[in-house]
Amino acid sequence: MRIFVDAMGGDNAPKAIVDGTLEALRNHSQLSVVLAGDLSQVEPLLKDAADVRDRIELVDAPEVITNDESPVMGVRTKKKSATVIGMLQLREHQVDGFVSAGSTGAVLAGGMFRLGRIPGIERPALAPVLPNGINQGSLLIDCGANVDCKPDYLLQFGLMGSIYMRDCMNIAEPRVGLINIGVESDKGNALVKETYPLMEKAPYHFVGNVEAREITNNAADVLVCDGFSGNLVLKFMEGVAGSLMGIIKKEIMADTRSKIGALLAKPAFRRVKHAMDYTEVGGAPLLGVQGAVVKAHGSSNAHAFACAIRQCIRIIDADVPGTIARGVDGLVQS
Amino acid sequence: MRIFVDAMGGDNAPKAIVDGTLEALRNHSQLSVVLAGDLSQVEPLLKDAADVRDRIELVDAPEVITNDESPVMGVRTKKKSATVIGMLQLREHQVDGFVSAGSTGAVLAGGMFRLGRIPGIERPALAPVLPNGINQGSLLIDCGANVDCKPDYLLQFGLMGSIYMRDCMNIAEPRVGLINIGVESDKGNALVKETYPLMEKAPYHFVGNVEAREITNNAADVLVCDGFSGNLVLKFMEGVAGSLMGIIKKEIMADTRSKIGALLAKPAFRRVKHAMDYTEVGGAPLLGVQGAVVKAHGSSNAHAFACAIRQCIRIIDADVPGTIARGVDGLVQS
Repeated sequence: MRIFVDAMGGDNAPKAIVDGTLEALRNHSQLSVVLAGDLSQVEPLLKDAADVRDRIELVDAPEVITNDESPVMGVRTKKKSATVIGMLQLREHQVDGFVSAGSTGAVLAGGMFRLGRIPGIERPALAPVLPNGINQGSLLIDCGANVDCKPDYLLQFGLMGSIYMRDCMNIAEPRVGLINIGVESDKGNALVKETYPLMEKAPYHFVGNVEAREITNNAADVLVCDGFSGNLVLKFMEGVAGSLMGIIKKEIMADTRSKIGALLAKPAFRRVKHAMDYTEVGGAPLLGVQGAVVKAHGSSNAHAFACAIRQCIRIIDADVPGTIARGVDGLVQS
Repeated sequence: MRIFVDAMGGDNAPKAIVDGTLEALRNHSQLSVVLAGDLSQVEPLLKDAADVRDRIELVDAPEVITNDESPVMGVRTKKKSATVIGMLQLREHQVDGFVSAGSTGAVLAGGMFRLGRIPGIERPALAPVLPNGINQGSLLIDCGANVDCKPDYLLQFGLMGSIYMRDCMNIAEPRVGLINIGVESDKGNALVKETYPLMEKAPYHFVGNVEAREITNNAADVLVCDGFSGNLVLKFMEGVAGSLMGIIKKEIMADTRSKIGALLAKPAFRRVKHAMDYTEVGGAPLLGVQGAVVKAHGSSNAHAFACAIRQCIRIIDADVPGTIARGVDGLVQS
């Protein structure tokens, strides 16, 4: 199995990316990688990698699509970027998967225009796992690839998410929920009201509407919503958790008794941080494109990036794109 | 000043509602109230209220619009409910304001169909304050009255929120932000992309897009969004805070050292709970209707309900509906 890695993407690139790739190579003896980036920066990082060096192919990719430029223009013009080279290699079956911690927009645009959609899939979707501290967490689909959605897109998101959670996360019959402002079937905006009856007929385990207050309460394994709402949810979760931890810190430092108490409770707080840490999960699969694509979190450290590669391996092993292609045929759309 | 109180609305009615009303009467010597509900339940609760009894008028309202029925049907048919009687009294200027902790849908429908919109206002909006632990919190408008919105609605929400925060919360020049998935002006779904240029020309202090991770970080005094997104934000905040506190509790109980630490830090945790407690704020004003209407939280205790009445007093004192009516005239819509 061969995975293409964008060595230059992410806040801690290329060091964390290369280290994470080496960790993955050491964990998976069948894995080989194409490591693409600015080779003058990448090569020196491989000096202690003699044990896996024969499973690394280096590709020079001097261009980088940054967060500050139009992703669509980027993948159109920057042909020497890792994103474009990797997506084309994936399309030509020279590699089996693609992992990047770089610009989300570039990965989406590259997946859409360089790699291509699975026939029948209206819109590929980005699907991170939201931790809940209870089990493996819930897959949030879509989290920002499609800000304006139609009911059929959401119907398909449910299918793709269900296949991913079943085949890559070992959940026998994933519960698919529709994020909504009430549990009753007649609640919500026009989009979700039209989506609900379609999902009722879908060949996956639809469990109805999920209210926002239940999102982190293991109400479903797959949480479906449009990309605008999904992105709100994803970023607001970060915001609320951060604010709450900030308030806790402030209040704890406000009196000596609490301060001592907090020092004693430090191991517990470390575990809390770990439980809510979504970098642990690796990254978000881009589902609906013709290949295994994982977008690792921009702030990935080496271990998080190794987890993202492991996720890509699972997608390849389970042939998620093939299963989605077969599944979409059986979907009754509006 | 005379305020109509729905004695039967909310999880703790009528006891908490009556007690809260008595607290408000004792705090505000100029206040008189109309207390409407099932009088066989309400009257016994007034036995220790001799000091303010002359400022309470009792009105028999035997019908209740529950959360389980269609609010629109409810306000149409249940003419002996507190919501309908109160909204009609407000419309006839027999009272100056209306406060209820009952069905949100009934308050919205009653405000819309029994009281009526301010001329020029497209859609009234419900606007709770989100606590942030930093200052008075940010007004979230709309939080669920309008699940499908047009750019002009959002433009008007900004105006109404800005007037409320200026005239009732003493913020000289409230910062109005548009909730979005990125800070750049070209980010977002079709709705927010069309709203942005309208807000740039609006006669209030528009500070641009606010990303969800900044919502609880005092990024703006007024946070504008459609009611679907606003309801997600409001309920997800509850959910995340609850989940996080749950995880913290679980981890703290997992080892003895942390357990002792948590006992010591108890005063700090009490202050945290207080800082994040939005029942403290009172309730959410329904802005855009022809009168001062406050929806208190369904779980209001007596003090929270007294705060909701205080909020209604401020809206009346500042003549928020009148200011909105004058302000909407100057708005350049799409």
